[in-house]
Amino acid sequence: MLDLDSLYSKNANNMKKSVIRELLKLTQQPDIISFAGGLPAPELFPVEELRQAADRVFTGSPKKALQYGTTEGESELKAELIKFEERQGVKLGKDNLLVVSASQQALDMVPKIFMDPGDYCIAGSPTYVGTIQAVQSYQGRVLGVPFSPENDGFDLVELEKRYARALRDGKRVKFVYVIPDFQNPTGICWSLEKRKALLAFAYRHDLLIVEDSPYREIRFLGETLPSIYQLDQQSEDRQIVVNLKTFSKILIPGARVGWIMARPEIIAKFVIAKQAMDLCTNVFAQMWLAEYLKTGKIYDHVKEINANYREKRNFMVEMLEKYMPKRFDLGWTRPEGGLFLWISLPSYIDTEKLLPKALEQKVAYVIGSAFYFDEPEHNAMRLNFSYASREQIEAGVQRLAKVISDEIALHDSGPRGQTSPEGL
Amino acid sequence: MLDLDSLYSKNANNMKKSVIRELLKLTQQPDIISFAGGLPAPELFPVEELRQAADRVFTGSPKKALQYGTTEGESELKAELIKFEERQGVKLGKDNLLVVSASQQALDMVPKIFMDPGDYCIAGSPTYVGTIQAVQSYQGRVLGVPFSPENDGFDLVELEKRYARALRDGKRVKFVYVIPDFQNPTGICWSLEKRKALLAFAYRHDLLIVEDSPYREIRFLGETLPSIYQLDQQSEDRQIVVNLKTFSKILIPGARVGWIMARPEIIAKFVIAKQAMDLCTNVFAQMWLAEYLKTGKIYDHVKEINANYREKRNFMVEMLEKYMPKRFDLGWTRPEGGLFLWISLPSYIDTEKLLPKALEQKVAYVIGSAFYFDEPEHNAMRLNFSYASREQIEAGVQRLAKVISDEIALHDSGPRGQTSPEGL
Repeated sequence: MLDLDSLYSKNANNMKKSVIRELLKLTQQPDIISFAGGLPAPELFPVEELRQAADRVFTGSPKKALQYGTTEGESELKAELIKFEERQGVKLGKDNLLVVSASQQALDMVPKIFMDPGDYCIAGSPTYVGTIQAVQSYQGRVLGVPFSPENDGFDLVELEKRYARALRDGKRVKFVYVIPDFQNPTGICWSLEKRKALLAFAYRHDLLIVEDSPYREIRFLGETLPSIYQLDQQSEDRQIVVNLKTFSKILIPGARVGWIMARPEIIAKFVIAKQAMDLCTNVFAQMWLAEYLKTGKIYDHVKEINANYREKRNFMVEMLEKYMPKRFDLGWTRPEGGLFLWISLPSYIDTEKLLPKALEQKVAYVIGSAFYFDEPEHNAMRLNFSYASREQIEAGVQRLAKVISDEIALHDSGPRGQTSPEGL
Repeated sequence: MLDLDSLYSKNANNMKKSVIRELLKLTQQPDIISFAGGLPAPELFPVEELRQAADRVFTGSPKKALQYGTTEGESELKAELIKFEERQGVKLGKDNLLVVSASQQALDMVPKIFMDPGDYCIAGSPTYVGTIQAVQSYQGRVLGVPFSPENDGFDLVELEKRYARALRDGKRVKFVYVIPDFQNPTGICWSLEKRKALLAFAYRHDLLIVEDSPYREIRFLGETLPSIYQLDQQSEDRQIVVNLKTFSKILIPGARVGWIMARPEIIAKFVIAKQAMDLCTNVFAQMWLAEYLKTGKIYDHVKEINANYREKRNFMVEMLEKYMPKRFDLGWTRPEGGLFLWISLPSYIDTEKLLPKALEQKVAYVIGSAFYFDEPEHNAMRLNFSYASREQIEAGVQRLAKVISDEIALHDSGPRGQTSPEGL
């Protein structure tokens, strides 16, 4: 008999299922209020305008849109992306740009191109689970760096300390992975100073920076800060930043279209990798989104999203303040953009063990430990505020607050001897 | 300064550019007649029916189609694929099926899941260049097996001999990769006997078979033979075959949608790999193709393609007979399906060196050596007959025949002393 286990590669044996995607299946029962996914609000999709754009493709260039395309991406879309980025102050040539099958493909390419088994990247602790999965699928490893209590990016002292220790231990570190704009899962936005400091750190140590910016345009409070990709262009222009963007949060995820910005040699390497991975990104979707972008309506659409998410985010924070127990060891981030906030609970609460109780109360979240490569914190959770309605946010937070309050009461009333191993 | 070369992985350093895709760029000049690509005939795309199907998605389920989907694939599409395969005698459950971003993604997943650096797969010598690229991008290797002169599949004596030698040399062989229906690049169709023999070989040696069937439905002559996937179901049902299918040749490549059929444990492994690679295939494209499939028009469409390609294939063979030099050492395959035929030239002609002369005469082909992992044959070329018009086929073959005749004349008239190293 075929022994599959003897045939699987080390890569395959190192692959981990996504906790989030498995959880999403659970939470698709209609009576559960889910704060778990990273789904944009579907009621905001500009369906009619997208329908018209698709129709123009069928009328104007069907044979091109339905045929194979170049690996680099369709020139119509690239021209629109250059304009879109230019409005934000990013200067691009066509050679700085590669269209990808949304950001996750770019995140799969990065370790394929830059990591040998055992190599390290530096990333937030916590960080986006899909990046951890991609890195693991090439047997790469993550050197986790905690965030500063100031909510403004990495703890830079820890960054230097952990990097120095890694080098001392003979580890090969290849790049720094960051999500400076409204980090997933915490919602933290990096300050200008920390962006500059990270760039200087990378210059100093000859490291690449992979800047993942799926939420960059989803800012509903405060002032937009330059991306690290821009800061590099504005200062030394050493072009050490690979910037990942996507339509998934600012328009629609269902088209699976994103783009990579980097210097031409790096783009050329990504093109070769992509040839063997899927030949080219969905040509129809590229032409379709190019048609939509030509209308210029994306800018108003992003404003509309931001207004909607600001309202939802404010309301979720209000509801957390209203319903959650008031304690020094229970708090949450107050993001200025993005789709998520992050709740820290008393240290004795393990959100993985809490989840069945929450699901029983018909409310779902993502367990915080999913976002750590190693040494996870167990007393945190990620909440999404873009998908649920106002009513669902109130009911869901109320349910969640009850589950957490019950857990705290249970701990406080429980026999000390039994709970102390967790409580300490 | 950032030293990129020190950052690239061994995978990246092992990646090879696709000769075909690079060549496609060259041949996009409008005055060149290109037999190089593997492009289906765009004039046959059912544009209006596809437009209507897309419109039904925008009307019926836009929020679903524009949102994230499951990694496994949309149930609407999977239901239609099960019906499509059932008509061909393939029994499938939903767990036997994974929707992928066209076959190249599946070909990238196979070595990721099954090959460690240095591992081998068995494949035709020659075989599809995209598979070679994918295998190389994980530092895998290909044990090439030549085809029999009977044009009916692998030379089975060579298969046994080379496999035994590989084992003796301590090589780890993981799977056999074959394209039994109208192989790329040769157009060869495997006989029933050879399909059965390969299955028995794989059973005997506990090997997986990866059966790539992009052209399976594109048969315009002779009788359809059971796929190896079907033969496995019909005989011992050991489920050792992973069958790859795609809409790229039977409908449109621009949607980038294909599917994998295999036993549930294997599908589950592919799902985990795919999560980290692109989360899910284009949801809109899946819903759109499901809508098109529901009309049942795919069957007539495939008939139309086959009638068209039969006519073009016959005409290309006719033109080859008319214009090519008549020699014992110059011949071509006469495929019963697919998109390609394969020309063998006198051994002293190197088709890579010949290509600039052909491009000068405004005709393009793919050099045969591109389809070999190692020990390439240099005196062959692949011609595509699906894309060019009848007029282009005549003019293109005429030009090609002139370039080849000139080369033969040059060799025959040349001073023996100079040409003999190539001539032998």
